[in-house]
Amino acid sequence: MGAFPTTDLAAVATILERLRTRRPLVHCLTNHVVKGFTANVLLALGAAPAMVEHPEEAEQFAGMADALLVNVGTLDEAQMAAMRRAVPSAKEAGRPWVFDPVAVGPLGVRTRFAAEILAQKPTVIRGNASEVMALAGLAGGGRGVDSGAESTAARDAARTLAQQTGGAVLVTGPVDYILDTSREAAVANGHPLMTRVTGVGCAMGAINAACAAVADSPFDACVATAVLLGIAGERAAAAAARPGSFAVALLDALDALDADAIRTQGRIA
Amino acid sequence: MGAFPTTDLAAVATILERLRTRRPLVHCLTNHVVKGFTANVLLALGAAPAMVEHPEEAEQFAGMADALLVNVGTLDEAQMAAMRRAVPSAKEAGRPWVFDPVAVGPLGVRTRFAAEILAQKPTVIRGNASEVMALAGLAGGGRGVDSGAESTAARDAARTLAQQTGGAVLVTGPVDYILDTSREAAVANGHPLMTRVTGVGCAMGAINAACAAVADSPFDACVATAVLLGIAGERAAAAAARPGSFAVALLDALDALDADAIRTQGRIA
Amino acid sequence: MGAFPTTDLAAVATILERLRTRRPLVHCLTNHVVKGFTANVLLALGAAPAMVEHPEEAEQFAGMADALLVNVGTLDEAQMAAMRRAVPSAKEAGRPWVFDPVAVGPLGVRTRFAAEILAQKPTVIRGNASEVMALAGLAGGGRGVDSGAESTAARDAARTLAQQTGGAVLVTGPVDYILDTSREAAVANGHPLMTRVTGVGCAMGAINAACAAVADSPFDACVATAVLLGIAGERAAAAAARPGSFAVALLDALDALDADAIRTQGRIA
Repeated sequence: MGAFPTTDLAAVATILERLRTRRPLVHCLTNHVVKGFTANVLLALGAAPAMVEHPEEAEQFAGMADALLVNVGTLDEAQMAAMRRAVPSAKEAGRPWVFDPVAVGPLGVRTRFAAEILAQKPTVIRGNASEVMALAGLAGGGRGVDSGAESTAARDAARTLAQQTGGAVLVTGPVDYILDTSREAAVANGHPLMTRVTGVGCAMGAINAACAAVADSPFDACVATAVLLGIAGERAAAAAARPGSFAVALLDALDALDADAIRTQGRIA
Repeated sequence: MGAFPTTDLAAVATILERLRTRRPLVHCLTNHVVKGFTANVLLALGAAPAMVEHPEEAEQFAGMADALLVNVGTLDEAQMAAMRRAVPSAKEAGRPWVFDPVAVGPLGVRTRFAAEILAQKPTVIRGNASEVMALAGLAGGGRGVDSGAESTAARDAARTLAQQTGGAVLVTGPVDYILDTSREAAVANGHPLMTRVTGVGCAMGAINAACAAVADSPFDACVATAVLLGIAGERAAAAAARPGSFAVALLDALDALDADAIRTQGRIA
Repeated sequence: MGAFPTTDLAAVATILERLRTRRPLVHCLTNHVVKGFTANVLLALGAAPAMVEHPEEAEQFAGMADALLVNVGTLDEAQMAAMRRAVPSAKEAGRPWVFDPVAVGPLGVRTRFAAEILAQKPTVIRGNASEVMALAGLAGGGRGVDSGAESTAARDAARTLAQQTGGAVLVTGPVDYILDTSREAAVANGHPLMTRVTGVGCAMGAINAACAAVADSPFDACVATAVLLGIAGERAAAAAARPGSFAVALLDALDALDADAIRTQGRIA
């Protein structure tokens, strides 16, 4: 693999500060399981969530919001219609948008739909190794929403996707990898309890959209996303050892994040 | 503005007592983001929630439940069909119903739909200043679900709406204003953390429906709603300073509300 | 009633151990109010949730997952289409599936649909007394999702259903009754706070599906479900006296369950 340039933790702190002062409005077209948690994660971090799903309104709102999230976790015909209208609207308005290809690969409808979305060249793609590999057309795998492959093995797929879209790719796992066409980074923050609460991964896509609305580049937004959520996860796990109280502590930790936490705990390679 | 008649805090305590003894069944046609939280808020307060969305069943159930909530936060075609059948059914059964015009004004589909719903003369309208002004056909504003105007400025709009519907209007903000065609009140309870948790405002509409099922008038139900939720918010904020634990504490505080809390903390002007 | 055979608490402990080691993937076609909570309950217990709702994907996924849950709490046309395709797929793949007939009886669409589902002979039916009686075609009752009849009175209905399906029936209430065509048991674990949090009953159906994926029989899966959730409820109530913090404590208690808790607290008659 290529050299890992040091990405300044100070840049992550700047993104957090901008989130709190600019409070970007994130249009979330996301799955039904995680809508409430996703909204609470964005609010805890300092951003503003909005879920607008009627196709006509989704098109209208994507041009008004500061960023768009497209998550296909519980895709249905109505949501596909909304996504087909929201994405071009966000692009026309110059807004960043994040694609989260949940369980793409093993499931048919969303995999065909993902090809359509990919052709629109998302600003950021966020997925686990299986999803990223499936999306790149490489040998996939995966079992439901679990990751069936190590994230390190997905870097080639991520590179292919970054070249195809011109955007950034965040491959999540025990270590998160971030790529665009010219840079590469790894973030080692996080905690296993984050996989014991539904929606942490999906909310990561929403955080990524919020960060992309205020960051200098999609790559920087991905690094900030992995660092911010990862540190919050570590701090929450230090406060709560079981998944119910951990989920509550994670929201509190996102609210409590500051430049000092980023400086002392951020682990970017 | 006119004189503010003193509304007895004892009346609020009576409504709370009735909620616990009669346990009104509230039919919630509400947005997808807040369904779980709304149900938990009603259960914590002592009421019984039910979400029945199939248009045929929504019509049937609206005549069986004790009150109906219509919240257009994530309006889609299926939900519009359910609302179009539920509202006349609730009216025919003599049940109170609350309209929450989330983000009406900037978004097209729901704004046109809101005109239809308004023509049915809701028992109670609950919205922030932007939404109430948009609904009254006055110069709106608003940005997603945020309030872009001070609630004080919306009182003329609220008065217009009350005259049009014959019902009560609750304009929420740092101070909540309540109007009907003959009375006016302000409630100063609440806490800023209530805006950091998704669904607190939407759940307020559900509480309003529950209160309307047991109150002597829609106006009294609005006052009770603002006082009960506001006090619970203040007590939760005293117990928990960050949004994750605040949301948990808010449910506990609703459960713990009693006549003494209302008497000592209620702030009705 | 017939004799109550002693069901070994050790068998429940074995099911729990298998849940943690095999981590069954549970396909949940469930209502919109409880999706997030249901997923968190399964994750806390050690199973893996997935909600796949597009009819084509629901059919595909039902053959890949280890068990299926069909809950009609917020039934709409799209979900009926998904259920009509998922059930035969799960059956063909030899997977257990659980039917939760929420509010069947008073509401028309779901009651007619329940007859269709029943004809497919679910592995397990889980409902309160009103729902089980309505499903058996006996004099129903019920008011929304509340139970309007004592669970003891529903045993005849449960027996009818078990004979019709060849599967097991779990009738929930202060005491849970479990029947199949040859055995009968009662479980006295649980706590009233479980009725103050939305989705505890619905999540019970999801736990039942997870247990059915690893148990030696549907009957054993029902007994394990009632014991595991009931003990967790008792332990959570000992830690948290109000509904907001109780819901958090319930997830923590599910995560903390072990063979010792089952041995010392399980109450099977």
